[in-house]
Parts: sequence; structure tokens; C-alpha cells
Amino acid sequence: MPTIRVEMFEGRTDEQKKDFVKAITEATVQTLGSSPEAVDVLLFEIKRSDWATGGVLWSDRK
Amino acid sequence: MPTIRVEMFEGRTDEQKKDFVKAITEATVQTLGSSPEAVDVLLFEIKRSDWATGGVLWSDRK
Amino acid sequence: MPTIRVEMFEGRTDEQKKDFVKAITEATVQTLGSSPEAVDVLLFEIKRSDWATGGVLWSDRK
Amino acid sequence: MPTIRVEMFEGRTDEQKKDFVKAITEATVQTLGSSPEAVDVLLFEIKRSDWATGGVLWSDRK
Amino acid sequence: MPTIRVEMFEGRTDEQKKDFVKAITEATVQTLGSSPEAVDVLLFEIKRSDWATGGVLWSDRK
Amino acid sequence: MPTIRVEMFEGRTDEQKKDFVKAITEATVQTLGSSPEAVDVLLFEIKRSDWATGGVLWSDRK
Repeated sequence: MPTIRVEMFEGRTDEQKKDFVKAITEATVQTLGSSPEAVDVLLFEIKRSDWATGGVLWSDRK
Repeated sequence: MPTIRVEMFEGRTDEQKKDFVKAITEATVQTLGSSPEAVDVLLFEIKRSDWATGGVLWSDRK
Repeated sequence: MPTIRVEMFEGRTDEQKKDFVKAITEATVQTLGSSPEAVDVLLFEIKRSDWATGGVLWSDRK
Repeated sequence: MPTIRVEMFEGRTDEQKKDFVKAITEATVQTLGSSPEAVDVLLFEIKRSDWATGGVLWSDRK
Repeated sequence: MPTIRVEMFEGRTDEQKKDFVKAITEATVQTLGSSPEAVDVLLFEIKRSDWATGGVLWSDRK
Repeated sequence: MPTIRVEMFEGRTDEQKKDFVKAITEATVQTLGSSPEAVDVLLFEIKRSDWATGGVLWSDRK
């Protein structure tokens, strides 16, 4: 703990994911004082056909 | 906000998903007074082999 | 199933919640063909001091 | 209700999942007094490239 | 990991919660082979006025 | 999107929360290239009597 869950569109590279979990963990350690090993980050990649804003799926926008 | 997460069995058509997110967003706008663009809906399709009721996976029922 | 989780700011009236869960359930029944009793809706009221957009808590905005 | 969500690494066998949901449901029935049919268990299998501890994805550990 | 989230009606005693997390953790260890310290269980107590089934809040049922 | 949910023990100060959501949002913007306004962070403060590790609630540890 803390446990951090992130929902984002699919399509990030492995490198982006690696940098992201590192950066978000450091941000947590520095501002909350958690020990790094206590921070879990789980990534959920959501398809644009499974996320709607304003009643319209992102796969149907524009 | 609001942010709405829906877990349902996999197997809906694109048309059903499109109608569902539209209907659920309109229901939110009308009853909560949210602006449509503030409503996010995320769909999570769950396999019957990953959902159990009464201790039995749905893939094993009947 | 489906199970619907809604995160929204706190402060809705009992009447709004009652209307909201009814409307959202009807929208689900009509577009997904679920039986009403199979639809669960869970409401999570979030304080403005626990929700940030753009890095700023809503309790600190304007 | 109760509704139980489990996030775990991918790679369990069908047999393990079947035993797990059965055991966890029985544990719930015995300690909380729920009726078995009221207990839902949802499994989310997470890839090691989507779960980080200490800022490092499990796919990159060791 | 695994991380187990449980949503249930509020009103369990401390003793029930204690027994429940112990039983559910043992069930996990025995069927998935996890080490006990790797199992996290988080309890979310939901008010009957925040959970609806069939479009009706549980606080309004019966 | 991304939407970031954080479960942590209760007891952080307003200042810590403010710094945390700012830092985590900046980390997201820098590594994923999201626009700041697209990043939502939701904080869930969990009581030690609602979080167990190894089958023991944190309120009962030590």
C-alpha cells in the first residue's frame, strides 16, 4: 500500500509503461513517504471501443 | 465525473455497446444533472470462466 | 451481472440516487437485454478533496 | 453481495481457478453468513508487464 | 498479489471481519499456492442506500 | 483518461494529498504524454481495520 490502478487507452510502448510506473512510484515515495516496495501499480489498457465520453465510444468519435 | 464502470459478460455486439453507453449517459444526465461530456463509461467484458456465482464459474454452470 | 459502479461527487439527494439507479437499470435492461434483477448498481460518493483533475483537487479549484 | 474482485498474475490453470472460487466462496459463507448464491467472484488476470512493485514491472524483475 | 477487494453491506462485526480476511487468505494460499504475505484483502462496506439491485436501492426494498 | 485510483491508509494531511495528486499527474504527463486536464486522480482512504495482509488486519498487527 498504496495500491495504484491506472486505466488508460491501449497503445503505450513497453518503454512508456516502464518509465510511467517508475515515475509514478517515485512521486508517491516523495510526497507520501511510502517505501518504494510498498507501492503497487497496476495498468489496465482499455480499448477505444470500451470507453465512452459524452455517450459516444472513443472508437466512434471524430 | 461521474465515472461509470460496467462489468458484464463478453459477447455484446458493437451496436449493443454503442446503444448502451448512450442510454446510460442520457440516464445520468437526466437524473443527476451532469453535463454529457462529464460522463465517462468504461466497459469491462468478463469471460464466463472468470466470473463465479455461488462458488461455480459460469463456464461450468448447467 | 452486469455490475455497475459509479463514482461521483458527494451531495446527491436520496431522491436523485433513487431515480438514477432506476434509470440506469432500465437503460441496461433495454439495450443489453439483461433481466432487471441481474443488474447491480453501486454508488461511491467521492469528496471533492479526494478527486483531482489536472493535478488539482476539486476542493482547491476556483 | 458480497462481490469479490481478485487481481492476480495470469497463468493459473482452469482447475486452480475452479478450486479458488469455490474455496473463497465457502470462506465467505462460513464467516459472513452469506448465502452462497449471493457471492460473486470476478477474476482479473494481470500480465507481469502490467503490474509494478517498487517502480519496476514484474516482467523486468530478476 | 493477489489483491482481493470485497464489497459488502456495512454492519459486520470486527470479529467477523477478522475471521473473514483470515479465511479468505487461507483459501487463496491453499488453492493458488500464494505465500500468505502476498495476499492483500481490502474491505469496502457499502450502505444499503448506495447499492441497488433491479433498479431499487436496498434501503428501499421490502 | 488516464484515470488513476489510489487506495492508501487514511491519515494523510491535506497538504500531502495536494502534493501527491500534483506529482502523480506531472509524472503521467511527462511519461505518457497526456494533457494534464485529461488526468483524473481519485483517492480512497482505507482504514487499517479494512485492509489485511497475510490474513491479518493492519489494525491487529504488532
